[in-house]
Amino acid sequence: MSIKAYAAHGCGQALEPFAYEPPPLGPHDVDIAVTHCGICHSDVHMIDNDWKMSRYPLVPGHEVVGTVAATGSAVTHLKKGQRVGLGWQSGSCMECEWCIRGDETCCPKEEGTIVGRHGGFAGAVRADGRFAIPIPEGLSSETAAPLLCGGVTVYTPLKTNVQPASRVGVIGIGGLGHMAIRFAHAMGCEVTAFSTSPDKRAEAKTHGADNFVVSTDAEQLRRAAASMDVLISAVTVDLDWEAWLKVLRPRGTLALVGASPGNVSVPVNALIVGKKSIQGSAIGNRSTIREMLEFAARHGIGAQTEVVPMSEVNAAINKVRTNRARYRMVLKN
Amino acid sequence: MSIKAYAAHGCGQALEPFAYEPPPLGPHDVDIAVTHCGICHSDVHMIDNDWKMSRYPLVPGHEVVGTVAATGSAVTHLKKGQRVGLGWQSGSCMECEWCIRGDETCCPKEEGTIVGRHGGFAGAVRADGRFAIPIPEGLSSETAAPLLCGGVTVYTPLKTNVQPASRVGVIGIGGLGHMAIRFAHAMGCEVTAFSTSPDKRAEAKTHGADNFVVSTDAEQLRRAAASMDVLISAVTVDLDWEAWLKVLRPRGTLALVGASPGNVSVPVNALIVGKKSIQGSAIGNRSTIREMLEFAARHGIGAQTEVVPMSEVNAAINKVRTNRARYRMVLKN
Repeated sequence: MSIKAYAAHGCGQALEPFAYEPPPLGPHDVDIAVTHCGICHSDVHMIDNDWKMSRYPLVPGHEVVGTVAATGSAVTHLKKGQRVGLGWQSGSCMECEWCIRGDETCCPKEEGTIVGRHGGFAGAVRADGRFAIPIPEGLSSETAAPLLCGGVTVYTPLKTNVQPASRVGVIGIGGLGHMAIRFAHAMGCEVTAFSTSPDKRAEAKTHGADNFVVSTDAEQLRRAAASMDVLISAVTVDLDWEAWLKVLRPRGTLALVGASPGNVSVPVNALIVGKKSIQGSAIGNRSTIREMLEFAARHGIGAQTEVVPMSEVNAAINKVRTNRARYRMVLKN
Repeated sequence: MSIKAYAAHGCGQALEPFAYEPPPLGPHDVDIAVTHCGICHSDVHMIDNDWKMSRYPLVPGHEVVGTVAATGSAVTHLKKGQRVGLGWQSGSCMECEWCIRGDETCCPKEEGTIVGRHGGFAGAVRADGRFAIPIPEGLSSETAAPLLCGGVTVYTPLKTNVQPASRVGVIGIGGLGHMAIRFAHAMGCEVTAFSTSPDKRAEAKTHGADNFVVSTDAEQLRRAAASMDVLISAVTVDLDWEAWLKVLRPRGTLALVGASPGNVSVPVNALIVGKKSIQGSAIGNRSTIREMLEFAARHGIGAQTEVVPMSEVNAAINKVRTNRARYRMVLKN
């Protein structure tokens, strides 16, 4: 079987049609016939080799939804034709302390769907079936796709840090941020959207934000002092972290999910006096992905998507690259 | 009633005998006849007005142990003659959301024992009886005194962050650090002492450290990479925080209790990829102080102290000031 895909053949290059032979179907493997695949900023980072771990030809795509087309001999939990999703992580050792406690994102041998192997901008993906997550009936495939990576990335720090009555601030209302608002709102929280774009106010409210703060307006930010229990930073630029720490209430947590390039730097005393925390978070475990999908289905939420044919992959990537997606691009076969 | 005390009459000055009339005995107040009072680095900071909130004459002392000498009309939980302790916090509003959830250290009206009022380097202290904590029988007064501030300062982040099987590192083996080792050891943790002083190795082991790392030895620190679940920083100098983050395992927490003067600065990506946290912590709530005292009594642990007569207060302060105390100085009336 040859898999038809779209691949970048070098750093930063446009994708081109590409066919490859998948590795042999291992006992735990499944083939997923891709119907939808979200485009994540991480795909762009991988195309551009920003993280110095790209191998070319590189087939991006790690927000895969499709149907099981083949199952290895040891696969008992999935059936052919079943709808599943595959996110950033496509494998782990299943034996280390992290894996056996259900925290496989910390496995030192964790495998990325598009790291040294080919992803979902394709007709099919072969992957460890234990990382293929069944999609609840109530979720459309285009809605589910961006949840597999972007969704769980914001769901995880919310699940960890908030209580239903928490005051949650979301910094940056883009692909991740708008999902964070939707989840936090559905969790019962009071949600404040912090954005540099005043024109996102109305839309933020439709996502479920109770309040909207223009973060470049010093006076507005000053009025928000000591108002948030949890801040989720979904931006990928460097911020004045000390100023944001002031937006937290005592015992507040600043959770970072956006890969800002620089350092987070705050006075030790500001953390101590306010009993505050800064936390990094990345994607989520399989159990969390499953829980999040069910939560999203039950609440009728997910990403706001723009669906385009897989053949328009380069135009779609360009939209993500230039932050013009509202809010997640999904490729459809 | 006039209270005899020792007071600094100006910034950085030696203490001199001083007598003052306490405020009227309020319905919730008690008078504590001081038998012992620990000396904390915060006393030195207050004498030196490092935090710009000192008022002179200033009677330091916020690790008070003594007996109840008088009770206000509303005090029902304490009896005259009962042994109690008073720590850094001597009052709070008792009405705000923080107070009613038992998190009164976050009360915006929290009152410090030596902030705008007089502390325990004295024959007596008048304070809100709700902040006078009964001392368990099994604890000597000299052992209990340093627990009231220093002890709960390290007990709180341990209680919050560790499980019995956690690998806990303590950075800085001084007044706070040696108590952190003792508590973490008694909690069942594997404890590693990190010190710049190789000569503290044997003593760290007697406190309960399983391992000892000379933190200035780059090779030793390199070997400690990714080995700790929790790091408690008890130092008051600035460290290479990025290097310390590398000592944490995935999901690890760096808890800061020492008031390092500068910023903590680490790459955002180091937090995200490792799913790590940096947390500030300060003193502890009354319920935690009570729990800690009982835990200490049950395990026969506390601070290692050097007891001197209250009249030798200036020599004792000087020992704290120059880091020559091993490990906590306690004044005795």
